Amino acid sequence: MTKTAGIIGGTGYTGGELARILCTHPDIEVAVMTSRQSAGKKVSKTHSYLDSYMDLEFVDSIPGSMDLDMVFVATPHGAAMQYTPELMESGVKVIDLSGDYRLRKATLYQQWYGKEHTDPENLAKAVYGIPELFREEIGRAQLVANPGCYPTATVLAMAPLFKEGVVLPDVIVDAKSGTSGAGMVPSPRTHHPYCGETIVPYNVGKHRHTPEMEMVLDMITGGESKVLFSPHLLPIVRGILSSCYMDLKVDLSEEELVKMYDKMYGKERFVHVVDEPSIRAVVCSNHCQVAVKRVGSRAVAFGAIDNLVKGASGQAVQCANLMLGLKEEAGLDMPGMGV
Amino acid sequence: MTKTAGIIGGTGYTGGELARILCTHPDIEVAVMTSRQSAGKKVSKTHSYLDSYMDLEFVDSIPGSMDLDMVFVATPHGAAMQYTPELMESGVKVIDLSGDYRLRKATLYQQWYGKEHTDPENLAKAVYGIPELFREEIGRAQLVANPGCYPTATVLAMAPLFKEGVVLPDVIVDAKSGTSGAGMVPSPRTHHPYCGETIVPYNVGKHRHTPEMEMVLDMITGGESKVLFSPHLLPIVRGILSSCYMDLKVDLSEEELVKMYDKMYGKERFVHVVDEPSIRAVVCSNHCQVAVKRVGSRAVAFGAIDNLVKGASGQAVQCANLMLGLKEEAGLDMPGMGV
Amino acid sequence: MTKTAGIIGGTGYTGGELARILCTHPDIEVAVMTSRQSAGKKVSKTHSYLDSYMDLEFVDSIPGSMDLDMVFVATPHGAAMQYTPELMESGVKVIDLSGDYRLRKATLYQQWYGKEHTDPENLAKAVYGIPELFREEIGRAQLVANPGCYPTATVLAMAPLFKEGVVLPDVIVDAKSGTSGAGMVPSPRTHHPYCGETIVPYNVGKHRHTPEMEMVLDMITGGESKVLFSPHLLPIVRGILSSCYMDLKVDLSEEELVKMYDKMYGKERFVHVVDEPSIRAVVCSNHCQVAVKRVGSRAVAFGAIDNLVKGASGQAVQCANLMLGLKEEAGLDMPGMGV
Amino acid sequence: MTKTAGIIGGTGYTGGELARILCTHPDIEVAVMTSRQSAGKKVSKTHSYLDSYMDLEFVDSIPGSMDLDMVFVATPHGAAMQYTPELMESGVKVIDLSGDYRLRKATLYQQWYGKEHTDPENLAKAVYGIPELFREEIGRAQLVANPGCYPTATVLAMAPLFKEGVVLPDVIVDAKSGTSGAGMVPSPRTHHPYCGETIVPYNVGKHRHTPEMEMVLDMITGGESKVLFSPHLLPIVRGILSSCYMDLKVDLSEEELVKMYDKMYGKERFVHVVDEPSIRAVVCSNHCQVAVKRVGSRAVAFGAIDNLVKGASGQAVQCANLMLGLKEEAGLDMPGMGV
Repeated sequence: MTKTAGIIGGTGYTGGELARILCTHPDIEVAVMTSRQSAGKKVSKTHSYLDSYMDLEFVDSIPGSMDLDMVFVATPHGAAMQYTPELMESGVKVIDLSGDYRLRKATLYQQWYGKEHTDPENLAKAVYGIPELFREEIGRAQLVANPGCYPTATVLAMAPLFKEGVVLPDVIVDAKSGTSGAGMVPSPRTHHPYCGETIVPYNVGKHRHTPEMEMVLDMITGGESKVLFSPHLLPIVRGILSSCYMDLKVDLSEEELVKMYDKMYGKERFVHVVDEPSIRAVVCSNHCQVAVKRVGSRAVAFGAIDNLVKGASGQAVQCANLMLGLKEEAGLDMPGMGV
Repeated sequence: MTKTAGIIGGTGYTGGELARILCTHPDIEVAVMTSRQSAGKKVSKTHSYLDSYMDLEFVDSIPGSMDLDMVFVATPHGAAMQYTPELMESGVKVIDLSGDYRLRKATLYQQWYGKEHTDPENLAKAVYGIPELFREEIGRAQLVANPGCYPTATVLAMAPLFKEGVVLPDVIVDAKSGTSGAGMVPSPRTHHPYCGETIVPYNVGKHRHTPEMEMVLDMITGGESKVLFSPHLLPIVRGILSSCYMDLKVDLSEEELVKMYDKMYGKERFVHVVDEPSIRAVVCSNHCQVAVKRVGSRAVAFGAIDNLVKGASGQAVQCANLMLGLKEEAGLDMPGMGV
Repeated sequence: MTKTAGIIGGTGYTGGELARILCTHPDIEVAVMTSRQSAGKKVSKTHSYLDSYMDLEFVDSIPGSMDLDMVFVATPHGAAMQYTPELMESGVKVIDLSGDYRLRKATLYQQWYGKEHTDPENLAKAVYGIPELFREEIGRAQLVANPGCYPTATVLAMAPLFKEGVVLPDVIVDAKSGTSGAGMVPSPRTHHPYCGETIVPYNVGKHRHTPEMEMVLDMITGGESKVLFSPHLLPIVRGILSSCYMDLKVDLSEEELVKMYDKMYGKERFVHVVDEPSIRAVVCSNHCQVAVKRVGSRAVAFGAIDNLVKGASGQAVQCANLMLGLKEEAGLDMPGMGV
Repeated sequence: MTKTAGIIGGTGYTGGELARILCTHPDIEVAVMTSRQSAGKKVSKTHSYLDSYMDLEFVDSIPGSMDLDMVFVATPHGAAMQYTPELMESGVKVIDLSGDYRLRKATLYQQWYGKEHTDPENLAKAVYGIPELFREEIGRAQLVANPGCYPTATVLAMAPLFKEGVVLPDVIVDAKSGTSGAGMVPSPRTHHPYCGETIVPYNVGKHRHTPEMEMVLDMITGGESKVLFSPHLLPIVRGILSSCYMDLKVDLSEEELVKMYDKMYGKERFVHVVDEPSIRAVVCSNHCQVAVKRVGSRAVAFGAIDNLVKGASGQAVQCANLMLGLKEEAGLDMPGMGV
């Protein structure tokens, strides 16, 4: 039986992308999309690619009378924790695509997001939504914190070596992201004349995704990881490449490293171990390509994803599928563009 | 029952794109892909985005013993007319994605393609594959000539006004194409340092798609159209925007013009009449957006498509669906990327 | 003796570009730059490429005591006509880079810019600043209206045929501009995720540069030109290509057309008649490449410029050189980037 | 008195860029340019941006009778060491822009370039051409090996900390280069549909610039540096950003790190210490921007250059100025584009 879903915050990129994915999903139907500024307007007027796929109009908020199976919260950071308590109380399953429920500790949230966490109760219940790492917990969760785009590409790229315990916990991540990761609000940094023919490092060592990556690596090892995170803004629209530099604790050949990747991802639907990672191969899909090289005493791992799909809305749908008892790949099982 | 298809020329962009589309098609299965240079190699080694979707290896040629429902010929111009006669004789349905069967007259082919047409017999049988114009003929055809990318975007943009007979037959088309339209073979024109941060007009008044557009417009009106075709190479990978300038014979308001578009395309699955045409809204989909403006005594029409989908392999699958008695939108019914 | 110049509105792209050009000019020195929002800040903090070239700090306004030879007004439309009257009265020479003094008739200004022209007196004195057309008038002028970027590329592309009177006055201009033409203020249209991998037609038939082009063509012919102007936003930072479609009144070969271009531009320092126009060949320079083709009964002309140089600040310096009795090419005589 | 120069290999990007820079140089004149494939053709036909700046025709080889002050060798690797011996014997000063004379040891050359070095005699005489490090040696040299683009950006970014001896010798360099660095010959990697909307890591740990960087760092410290070099191909035409990760041996604040940069580069004409490095600020100029951050126990340094100017032909002219006793910045002293 078809499940029904609501999307809170439907005008932004992740909200639109959720609608794009779900409008061809065999088992989930979007029943309602909210938008404060566009209430009363057709969704397909804002997102013209949804013309003939989505006949809904945006509403100001989800009517209390609606009986939904799942709510996706696709609002900016800070807003999500205002919507979530009531949703949780109503019993509906919730996936939050913002950063509000990712960091387990409220103090860490305060430190990195610059505001107090107002919903510590649900924060304690939230499960971090990378299915390749936390499949079962996600399946049982009422609230999933959908991961950030950078952490998804980065953690998937390094997880096998952390799992095997063959690298030191102090790593360097030099990541490159397309501009859609910055969201739909114009800003000096995403102004085309500024960013269109260059690459710009930003928030080096200060990006909010740093503690998120460290938290997930720690969940894998139990240890104390440390990530030097250095993000760069790329002049492309979609896609992230994360280049990760790790010190090997053990003398392993490249072949042996690759085997660890094959072991962890061999049965995964959406993670592919390749020789040369390619953003183009995964763009417009939920797939992730990972590669590992050995250079001297280090392992160099790469992760490539579409930041709006596996890095946001696609992964949210993957989690939703698990939470709703559907096939994990339902609605997501198509290849990337390639060219 | 699932139909089986073969792809001749599987390493190029249109061959790969056919495989990308068909690997999730509910009713057509790719049974064989040929490639001279990659025979024996896994398809997913050449096209890494097909990893886990396509387990085939390229073969040198389609085994005579194979019983296929459809063969897609995705070879360069000139090669297709070498493969087609034998295929036609075998009774299999054929869609040729090259230019070999598009121009109805062999003399015109010689003039624009610089070589003699060696298969005039099948040329006479070929049906031009824009379903929105020639749906029934395509459904009955054994051989379909899949249209060029520029003609698809351009003809769809102008067809309503030609159909209504409200414009003069002499038009100007200023089209802009992404670089994937040039195919997979590196050349000075598609070398990134040359084309990556500029727009380049090329073959103005001399491009092979000129007689193709004129032929289709003539099929609509019976008259003698004349197209000044001015193509430009855009620094994007996928997408065409065709800007078409027509002289109005009749004094019509913009509203009346739009109505003609709504009338022609209102029930079409893949053509959408919009205010502002957007390549991004259709990229990675079989959709086409068209828009029409009135400026002074002229109508200005725009058509936007993904050159590899609606401009090539997607349209081929749309034709294949018609030829095989399947739902026209089977395997193609998903929205463009939007962002 | 070195001339001194002031720049009003120094934080924007054209203000910064003026400083970039003038800081290596042999005969003009920038003595003062104004900026309301950055007053007191080093110019080279805002424009880091000017580090070690420009030691000035922005000031709120030009001190009344300053004795300058030239003032460049690089403010938004509407603001320029507030600064200009006082400057004119002081006797200083003025070049306005905004649209405020381009359209000779105040009524036309009101119609296209949506506000009353508050300085009709100086409007009557302003000379339109394309040196290749109005060299002598510019040399004698106290006030020059620096042309728009699109009109520069477009008029230079078509002028020879209008001058010779061999084309009909009703023309179609399909122009493509880099995003820097939109200025430094972020907006939805120049947001990279929106514009970075597409081409977007905008303001078709409604762009303010339309009456400007018509005015200049009329100044050439005395006749009544009509321009269908169709601008498109390109995903490049700098550069304009204008593709112009004209009906020939006379049967002329392409060779004869090219001769008309050679005749008009043969002795020009900054206009080059070429076979294939290239934005890359002129970017970062004051040069313009023009080309003309004959296609059927039409002439197709192309003009390529760097919108911030020949399309704005470079042309302003070229005009300043003429107004100050300097060599026309002073400070501007270097080739484009090519690659 | 004007010095005369010849360019061997004038059709490529670095040859054209040399001509572009030298055609406005006050003290050096290009007297001859060679090209095997374009001999007899005007230089400005191949490089249209040189129209009106360069009236030469390519010749097959430099006539023996010519008396030149300087020869720039801008041929591919391997070819340069064929031309150089005879030039050196003639007494002319030589700058080789290829990799042939960069690595001091012939064995290292063989290892990384896959062929025997045929001119070990001159290899022993060659001086490595980064003026900011080896100004005096360059001034006295007859043969200068012009550095690679990556080593220039990278070494300038890290040199202050190596000079002060405050970092460990084992470093990670994640560099990003525009496509013009790959030269003018089309290849699959620089084919726009492949590279135009992505970032591609390549030759990780295996790039020829690795031993070059290590050699220069060793010349600074006398020690045994080790570089994990991870280059990435960026979808921009010009520009390199090198992101360098170093372990601090000493506990230094970011302020103290910055001071070391100011100390080393404070008087340099072409190196600028900034907060946020910007490729755009240096493109089309010989300038380099460097920045340093402290993150945890590491220093992160960035270097940004135009790969064809400071990374190739501009640096060659800077060296030529020193070798010819001219002002070091002659012909090079203009700011980058900024926008």
